[in-house]
Amino acid sequence: MVDIAAIRTIGLVGGGVIGAGWAARFALAGYDVRMFDPDPAIGRKVEAVLGNARRAQQRLLGALLPSEGTVTIASSLADAVATADFIQESLPEVETLKQRVLCEIEAAARPEVVIGSSTSGLLPTSLASVLTNPERFVVGHPFNPVYLLPLVEICGGTATTQATKDTATALYTACGMQPLQVRVEIDGFIADRLLEALWREALWLVNDGVATTSEIDDAIRYGAGLRWSFMGTFLTYRLAGGEAGMRHFLAQFGPALKLPWTKLVACELTDELTEAVAAQSDEQAAGIGLREYEQKRDDCLVDVMTALKANDFAAGATLKAHGDRLAARQPVLADDPLLMLATRVDAAWIDYNGHMTEWAYLKVFGDTTDVFLAKIGAGPDYVATGHSFYTVESHLRHVGQARLGEALRVTTQVLGCDTKRLHIAHSITGAAGKVIATAEHMLVHVDSSAERSAPMAPAVAKAVAVFMQAHANLPRPEFAGRSIGMPQS
Amino acid sequence: MVDIAAIRTIGLVGGGVIGAGWAARFALAGYDVRMFDPDPAIGRKVEAVLGNARRAQQRLLGALLPSEGTVTIASSLADAVATADFIQESLPEVETLKQRVLCEIEAAARPEVVIGSSTSGLLPTSLASVLTNPERFVVGHPFNPVYLLPLVEICGGTATTQATKDTATALYTACGMQPLQVRVEIDGFIADRLLEALWREALWLVNDGVATTSEIDDAIRYGAGLRWSFMGTFLTYRLAGGEAGMRHFLAQFGPALKLPWTKLVACELTDELTEAVAAQSDEQAAGIGLREYEQKRDDCLVDVMTALKANDFAAGATLKAHGDRLAARQPVLADDPLLMLATRVDAAWIDYNGHMTEWAYLKVFGDTTDVFLAKIGAGPDYVATGHSFYTVESHLRHVGQARLGEALRVTTQVLGCDTKRLHIAHSITGAAGKVIATAEHMLVHVDSSAERSAPMAPAVAKAVAVFMQAHANLPRPEFAGRSIGMPQS
Repeated sequence: MVDIAAIRTIGLVGGGVIGAGWAARFALAGYDVRMFDPDPAIGRKVEAVLGNARRAQQRLLGALLPSEGTVTIASSLADAVATADFIQESLPEVETLKQRVLCEIEAAARPEVVIGSSTSGLLPTSLASVLTNPERFVVGHPFNPVYLLPLVEICGGTATTQATKDTATALYTACGMQPLQVRVEIDGFIADRLLEALWREALWLVNDGVATTSEIDDAIRYGAGLRWSFMGTFLTYRLAGGEAGMRHFLAQFGPALKLPWTKLVACELTDELTEAVAAQSDEQAAGIGLREYEQKRDDCLVDVMTALKANDFAAGATLKAHGDRLAARQPVLADDPLLMLATRVDAAWIDYNGHMTEWAYLKVFGDTTDVFLAKIGAGPDYVATGHSFYTVESHLRHVGQARLGEALRVTTQVLGCDTKRLHIAHSITGAAGKVIATAEHMLVHVDSSAERSAPMAPAVAKAVAVFMQAHANLPRPEFAGRSIGMPQS
Repeated sequence: MVDIAAIRTIGLVGGGVIGAGWAARFALAGYDVRMFDPDPAIGRKVEAVLGNARRAQQRLLGALLPSEGTVTIASSLADAVATADFIQESLPEVETLKQRVLCEIEAAARPEVVIGSSTSGLLPTSLASVLTNPERFVVGHPFNPVYLLPLVEICGGTATTQATKDTATALYTACGMQPLQVRVEIDGFIADRLLEALWREALWLVNDGVATTSEIDDAIRYGAGLRWSFMGTFLTYRLAGGEAGMRHFLAQFGPALKLPWTKLVACELTDELTEAVAAQSDEQAAGIGLREYEQKRDDCLVDVMTALKANDFAAGATLKAHGDRLAARQPVLADDPLLMLATRVDAAWIDYNGHMTEWAYLKVFGDTTDVFLAKIGAGPDYVATGHSFYTVESHLRHVGQARLGEALRVTTQVLGCDTKRLHIAHSITGAAGKVIATAEHMLVHVDSSAERSAPMAPAVAKAVAVFMQAHANLPRPEFAGRSIGMPQS
């Protein structure tokens, strides 16, 4: 298996919806991307997807996001893949086209580099049959939008080595994805077989005039779709079986397998059906543009995944684990002994005055506190043991402004502590090097199950003492201990 | 159509997972329920479902929930339906059984009462063929858990009147559901045709040893299931088509309809397959019990729907509209002259401790300040004239905790002002009536283009003076003017 830590540059071939989504997924995970696509508009298209992705990932992970990698539009396929440490192909689903381009990729790539394919359902053994080194080829099938949906199906051909699969699995995981090993090589893998069955039935319903595209979408999103977002189909039906579980469900609904409840033959995609589906889809979209719908989709996905994160379940568990990994990897920023966090002003943080909004400052201060807590051994692992720090009081001062995209640096100074309390101060410095906001916080250490204050664990208290000692000779910030007031008017 | 406002009592026949779910849905919407089921354990089973439902609906709607109706276990079918204003049948999917019981229901019910059936896919014309008055029969097909999922398919037979469909639609809507009119009478209606196609393909994957129940669920819930929860299949694919939309998607993936991506013939449910599915499902459930999974499912559903509500989209739009209807029925909150804002804890505001996170409090306080500024004539229109208030200092105190979905009330008191400055205090009160956080803010009035402080416009200054005068005799909050500090350790 390739050492994941050595992977820096990703070569992408094909820049459609999936390829551009990969560019955003990799760049926002900190990898440099080199993309080739003969489309002259490729730069603009990738930039549009990257803009959506940046906005969504900022909302999802905030200050935990690593420094964004570069995205370079390469002048040729060889230029994209020659220096790449991992390659991902995302061409249309035409087997001969994919095979031809995979040969070109293989010729230009370094010999040990893994080549992934985004195919939705073509067989890896067949795709790799034209390669000299099929052992380094593997399917990594993602789902749109690639920069948000966690699922990626990993499927090797007969020649694919375990090391190749492990490399792809580790890299996708490092990007926040949820790899699913497809153990049996089969057309459509697992997910697209299920999607295709539902999709073909949906086309029949339109074809036969039973329901419109809008009615069919409603039949999904107000019902089973809500359950599918975190439980899938079998666990859902197990619960539908009531106290007797899956056996009871099968006994009760087994006979329905004999009922004429699906057409179960593929529908001919005639010109008439294409026109009907497209026209109904236009009507359903109600004149709302693609970008607007994409942002609505991304907002819903971010909020659904964030909601599931609160339950540490399904895609929310993936997100939580990814955030924990990123938090553990926050660089030790040694050029300033107090520096705790570096971030950038996100579009979602801008208010109607065009400035960074009030609550966003507290979000940055809160993220800074989280980084500090991780450094003293009181991060998520510690919280899982039933102890935590709660902020009981905060005093914020706004002495300057921050604008969209501005780089912010946050420093932290420990002002005081006892066995249960922690008194800290943060300062946010803007791009011009001036302090734009300060915060003073009092945190209390609690036993979460008892919901009352309790002494810190010895290791945490010791780590706090190290900070206290390091900060002991620093001047106390002039803003510490201040209160809010004004002369009587 | 029956006057919905006159409906008080719902007669339910059949108390399985679906019937008990209806009992909870109706009772929590304020209707009295009379349930008949010959199962001697029916009372205990309904009570268990009602317990889950109460917990989930509380989290979903909180203080907006109306007074719960009564649930009575009737001694006979006639006893359940004779006094009912609406009847819902939820028996197993056996046509002859349903027909026999529907005749008994018709004989005991008042003649004008609508009879709904929960059938998943049997045809209403056929079910009603045995009735004397088939015009009052209609299918209202819900989804498990009935007390949470909004979808209910409405399908009439050839004899069903529009008034019957309208009555069912209005009643289900009043319970917070999202009725979908099935215009063409077809086996499986719309939703179950789609679910059945996916389900049959899933059974093939288990049958052929391609994937386990757990892997299949993962293939859904980490990918397409997340999208299906708010967009369905056609709108999702429209976006996957990129800038060229649905026509491009059909051109690109139309050929895949010819690929062997589903089995598309019904799978024989052999004893071996039943055993394989049940055993894999047991392993997947990992010893976690039904009730625990039901609560996890309900928590996820509540949080996903709450997250979608923030986007006013799909099931979130249904929930928001239902909440707005319920709120319109609440008394005007005239009991507190300082009340500025009422809101609810959003899923995105929850931290890894499961509590409302720091920055979210400042968001609520900031929103409250915005409401106050709008009241004194300094809202967005005023900002557009080049003047604005900037918050220069904030002092927050956290004295309690808020949980997902909790109703919050925020009061505002003006503490002081001069020509350029405004000193205000906010308090957030949680569902239990206790203050959980306070804020003290100093705002400075600025000329935005000059970026310096400037006197307020006369109309704004006058509006502030009105608040000052109204609040002059109120006690000053004990938290005003405080500073943060601790005894030296």
